[in-house]
Amino acid sequence: MVEAVDPQFLRPLAAQNVDRGRAMTFGADKPLTLDSGRQLSPFTLAYMTYGALNADRSNAVLVCHALTGDQFVASAHPVTGKPGWWETMVGPGKPIDTDRFFVICTNVIGGCMGSTGPADIDPATGKPYGLDFPVVTIRDMVRAQAMLIDALGVDKLLCVIGGSMGGMQVLQWAASYPERVFAAVPIATAARHSAQNIAFHEVGRQAIMADPDWNSGNYQLAETRPGKGLAVARMAAHITYLSEAALQRKFGRSLQNREAVSFGFGPDFQIESYLHHQGMTFVDRFDANSYLYITRAMDYFDLAADYGGVLAEAYRGAKTRFCIISFTSDWLFPTVENKRVAHALNAAAANVSFVEIETDRGHDAFLLDEPELFAAVRGFVNAAATVRGVA
Amino acid sequence: MVEAVDPQFLRPLAAQNVDRGRAMTFGADKPLTLDSGRQLSPFTLAYMTYGALNADRSNAVLVCHALTGDQFVASAHPVTGKPGWWETMVGPGKPIDTDRFFVICTNVIGGCMGSTGPADIDPATGKPYGLDFPVVTIRDMVRAQAMLIDALGVDKLLCVIGGSMGGMQVLQWAASYPERVFAAVPIATAARHSAQNIAFHEVGRQAIMADPDWNSGNYQLAETRPGKGLAVARMAAHITYLSEAALQRKFGRSLQNREAVSFGFGPDFQIESYLHHQGMTFVDRFDANSYLYITRAMDYFDLAADYGGVLAEAYRGAKTRFCIISFTSDWLFPTVENKRVAHALNAAAANVSFVEIETDRGHDAFLLDEPELFAAVRGFVNAAATVRGVA
Repeated sequence: MVEAVDPQFLRPLAAQNVDRGRAMTFGADKPLTLDSGRQLSPFTLAYMTYGALNADRSNAVLVCHALTGDQFVASAHPVTGKPGWWETMVGPGKPIDTDRFFVICTNVIGGCMGSTGPADIDPATGKPYGLDFPVVTIRDMVRAQAMLIDALGVDKLLCVIGGSMGGMQVLQWAASYPERVFAAVPIATAARHSAQNIAFHEVGRQAIMADPDWNSGNYQLAETRPGKGLAVARMAAHITYLSEAALQRKFGRSLQNREAVSFGFGPDFQIESYLHHQGMTFVDRFDANSYLYITRAMDYFDLAADYGGVLAEAYRGAKTRFCIISFTSDWLFPTVENKRVAHALNAAAANVSFVEIETDRGHDAFLLDEPELFAAVRGFVNAAATVRGVA
Repeated sequence: MVEAVDPQFLRPLAAQNVDRGRAMTFGADKPLTLDSGRQLSPFTLAYMTYGALNADRSNAVLVCHALTGDQFVASAHPVTGKPGWWETMVGPGKPIDTDRFFVICTNVIGGCMGSTGPADIDPATGKPYGLDFPVVTIRDMVRAQAMLIDALGVDKLLCVIGGSMGGMQVLQWAASYPERVFAAVPIATAARHSAQNIAFHEVGRQAIMADPDWNSGNYQLAETRPGKGLAVARMAAHITYLSEAALQRKFGRSLQNREAVSFGFGPDFQIESYLHHQGMTFVDRFDANSYLYITRAMDYFDLAADYGGVLAEAYRGAKTRFCIISFTSDWLFPTVENKRVAHALNAAAANVSFVEIETDRGHDAFLLDEPELFAAVRGFVNAAATVRGVA
């Protein structure tokens, strides 16, 4: 006897009754085999495409999203109504020009915008997976994407591009499927998650799991929402996306709608109001268990570990062209981590260029209006397209 | 009719039924007038002294503790049994030599190791203060200390020294009571709390206040303990006390008592176990409301704001000798913030020396075995003592 679940608790508010774009479901004949040894079946990948696939099927660009991103890379988010998260980069006439390229972006497996994740119903029990959802890895995300690309009739991607966790997927794509990636642009990322980054993720997870409304992950059945814990997790993470200099420039010690401090615990400072806003808006659009799973996937990422600890071995003989991009003030994925990848690619005699962009905007710079970023991507992707003979 | 409170909920576990050293209570005739305009009366300062005051009363050194510190600077902590938090710096034959100097250290007002704080009984209600305790500032902490120093018969301190929030108190002492401070050693600190630091503090406070066991600050009456929230706050803060390099060196991606990742949400990584330990041990020795109050005091600290925004004005005509110390890998109170103080002192034509110590240990370096730190402090304090004619 399966308990009924009020549908409103099945997904975060943001993902209810909204158009989540396109979706492809892989049935029992096509299970997703995971690094953990478990299988996920059936499973769905939600995705969006922009532009048109050419007759040669040679102009497909896969965009990989970051921790809290989704498939709405170049069109309005169905809930928030805000522009797609990378409309500055992807669209007609943009650096990744949808008049020329066929752009695909999928919600990662484990996510909460339509791809199968812990908020979905486990067919074995008829209840939401919760923590019974298998722990997934970056490689699992990429495996699922490869199945979608197959189904879309694309054999070889012109380019795989993404920042942060998206960059991890780019690095994994080029390692797992070298013959399917003509060009790769990992941005503001690393081939392994650092101790400090694992530590920040663990703080976020502990904040979520400390929230009694999390209910051991079964909050949907309990009809609760661990919003306070998820908001704290988001606030802590958000600090790491910015830089000290940018915070000082944007907020400094400015007070929020007051002349003097209140001698209380409300948001006296603008930076406090800003963080509260980040926390509150996030819980409306994101699932707490998805946050646990996706942060875990990032923590587990250590590409070299699959190649005897030698990162260069991941790319031995690779013909993929790489453009690696980092930002000077990014302390979450600092230049040194991006350079490690470039050095490994050099050691593997791969085709690699490296660009470090001067900015005070921290890790978030990859999502912001950074002309040098756009110029580098435009030039690199167009050159790759030309070499590959895309019209 | 006042509700009875189970005494075990009046203080954090650590502060119950233990010797909290010496204490001085200031009665109704000596209220503490606070920056908020409120008065605290009666109030108690818990403190420890080491060494003996000389006949000239010229050898007193005031040590100011950091956010989670206490008065047990050079003797075992009565609860944890661990050595005093700065025994490497203070003691017989140590850089601050208790065979030569009379060392005083007080628990700050708002604290939870014996000085009056939010866990204490409000005489007006007979109940614990909770959030009715007045918000205090760094200047309020220093005002209270000055009253204690008066009561101990010390007119002028040979030296005031401290790191982090202790350094803020040092800077405030030299500004508020220039004639009472012969020498000052602010370490790893700043004359204002930065936007990023306020942000991290706010995350910690939100974690505490999100814990339902916090009960709007009235957890003692409710006989609960917001331990989960306080632990999350401590974990987040602890990351900021270290450096990325030190975390990588100490933990890297090493697993905790296992050969492979678990594909679960337990502490797979050593850094996770370490953080959990930091969180769990902290809640036994610290009061959650005190954490709110003391972090708020740090956030409010902006010394220049009291002097028309010009920090140098805080030290105009100062005769105090300053030794400012920072650490290369400290990103919480980076060298640039410490240098701002040095520049202001230079602008005020004060006597100032500045030392930046090369280390990868981050902010916590001021508490660790750093020979260059000890050498700098020993030399500076001894020179000051000699100039002042201390035998």
